[in-house]
Amino acid sequence: MTALPCACGIDVHAHVVPEKFPAYFGGPMPKLWPSTAEAPNANGLCHRHIMIAGKNYRTVSEKCWSTTRRLADLPQMGLAKQVISPMPELFSYWFEPHEAQQLLRFLNEQIAAMAAESNGALIGMGAVPLQDLDLAITELRYAVEVLGMVGVEIGSNVNGKVIGDPHFEPFFEACEALGASVFVHAVKPAGMDRLVGPPPLQQVLAYPTDVGLAAASVITSNLMMRHPKLRIAFSHGGGTLASLLPRLQQGWSVFPALKEQVQTSPTEQARKLYFDTLVFDTPTLQHLTNMFGSTQLMLGTDYPFNFHDRTPVDRVNATGFDAAVLKQLTFKNAERFLGMNLHTQAPARTNA
Amino acid sequence: MTALPCACGIDVHAHVVPEKFPAYFGGPMPKLWPSTAEAPNANGLCHRHIMIAGKNYRTVSEKCWSTTRRLADLPQMGLAKQVISPMPELFSYWFEPHEAQQLLRFLNEQIAAMAAESNGALIGMGAVPLQDLDLAITELRYAVEVLGMVGVEIGSNVNGKVIGDPHFEPFFEACEALGASVFVHAVKPAGMDRLVGPPPLQQVLAYPTDVGLAAASVITSNLMMRHPKLRIAFSHGGGTLASLLPRLQQGWSVFPALKEQVQTSPTEQARKLYFDTLVFDTPTLQHLTNMFGSTQLMLGTDYPFNFHDRTPVDRVNATGFDAAVLKQLTFKNAERFLGMNLHTQAPARTNA
Repeated sequence: MTALPCACGIDVHAHVVPEKFPAYFGGPMPKLWPSTAEAPNANGLCHRHIMIAGKNYRTVSEKCWSTTRRLADLPQMGLAKQVISPMPELFSYWFEPHEAQQLLRFLNEQIAAMAAESNGALIGMGAVPLQDLDLAITELRYAVEVLGMVGVEIGSNVNGKVIGDPHFEPFFEACEALGASVFVHAVKPAGMDRLVGPPPLQQVLAYPTDVGLAAASVITSNLMMRHPKLRIAFSHGGGTLASLLPRLQQGWSVFPALKEQVQTSPTEQARKLYFDTLVFDTPTLQHLTNMFGSTQLMLGTDYPFNFHDRTPVDRVNATGFDAAVLKQLTFKNAERFLGMNLHTQAPARTNA
Repeated sequence: MTALPCACGIDVHAHVVPEKFPAYFGGPMPKLWPSTAEAPNANGLCHRHIMIAGKNYRTVSEKCWSTTRRLADLPQMGLAKQVISPMPELFSYWFEPHEAQQLLRFLNEQIAAMAAESNGALIGMGAVPLQDLDLAITELRYAVEVLGMVGVEIGSNVNGKVIGDPHFEPFFEACEALGASVFVHAVKPAGMDRLVGPPPLQQVLAYPTDVGLAAASVITSNLMMRHPKLRIAFSHGGGTLASLLPRLQQGWSVFPALKEQVQTSPTEQARKLYFDTLVFDTPTLQHLTNMFGSTQLMLGTDYPFNFHDRTPVDRVNATGFDAAVLKQLTFKNAERFLGMNLHTQAPARTNA
């Protein structure tokens, strides 16, 4: 098997939760304002409960906030660098805009601080209050221009409005103008009323469903036609987009109304989007790479949550693609997505 | 390219709309009771508008109701036989149960009559008022035992309740006991509020989304564990299930609550379901066949609607699978799904 022996991967999909949240200032505490609470240690790691509306949303370990712990884990995952972005449940789109901005400003500064102390290994990506486009653009500029972040993570929808909706046009225009990378992650997904089983099915089934529909909406609204320099990526391998795309392509050739709406072939537009490799299956990863192009996939892990990929580089190596493609998937595409050129000196050596 | 030269395919996914609907008897006309209205001829074919709630839902041609026209089209599509089932918008789950039963009884008898005059080329599949399980089972028995239908087409959800919900247990128990095939088709899909573009996106994007979630719900609720002899198929290649399944498999191995709920590996359970080939893309069809097994896919076309596959057998041949697999996909799996053995004398000859 061809394999890249170095720990040279760039993970574009990993999350941060701060150890503690500040109290809200400026008025009564918003009902959904998060906090954390002490939790029992486990596996030698400090843990905390993330409390939202008085309930434990999730119990997480110090890997969420400790730069040292995180850096210690990267090499064994084959990673040289990791993009760190907020846990999506912290997007705060459901807050009053100024409340959200206060929380997201804190988060963005925490993430920027982690990146600053990582000696270049962690790359900060922020979040913005997209329920208010003016505030979102203000915070985007702050994240990129003041905090030096590469861009922002956004939800697949904002309070139910899918991100391909023309409403978000000024935001994407600003992202393109600033050269900010955009990473789209599922949040508050569609399809929840179609699940039969325990709560994790939200992440397992509804998340990829919402991401797939979000990616499709970006295609049907011609986002990349209007903003050809925008760099936008979708989590979880684009979710269900791979299943939807051939049918969208065929429908585009059959329905005049769709042909009129969608300016360029859906398949071609899909190949201008980026996707992470977080699909947990070799044939699926091969299929995505063939469908979207070897230039469009990048490592993604969902580190450090329970449901994360511990062997992202091994998974790419298992595809059996040639060394050039493995390098693209492992770090070169991520460099392009991030607008960086971090690995110009990376080893070209491969093992047969 | 290996290819089956004979017109020996069995299409399990094709629809019927009657030329006219009877008036409702037994009370005031239900608001959503369908009717048809004269439409201009086109392409030498008689057309009619399907009127629902005073609006033209869709304009369709006589291929929807004319057995002769339909039979004339089968050979050029490489088909020997076709399963015919109602246009899903006629499922009538949103009617009062007795209103729905009246409409579906009419539809089932129309479909049975078309099958009867087809000299075995058309295979009737009915519909049942699933908003009332007792009535649904009564109509199922009538369809199978009196009309001689092979089974029923059902929605991916019934008024928003996904078909994997335990609520439908008595219905599936009856299907298994009667040996009735079940074909699951999208209807009133989830995800509509995530679409950006014209109305056809409902069929193009939301239909496969809803089918994928329905298939996943059948897995997470262990339907095939409880009813191992049930034969159930999903339209549009299972919709988004192919994108969801690897993540469901991984989630099942990570989340104790999911492991507890889902009795057998999701991947194994998926390989007990049937799927049609209606995906309009060779690599996707190859991927589905590898994922679900060469024993589980069957031709599906959506004939005679605009958005139908005119070359279903060519698409299977294009996969490049060996002759044995091509035969499975073209007719042998359908025979098994339908509980028939229609092709025991079919030519085994193939061209290299």
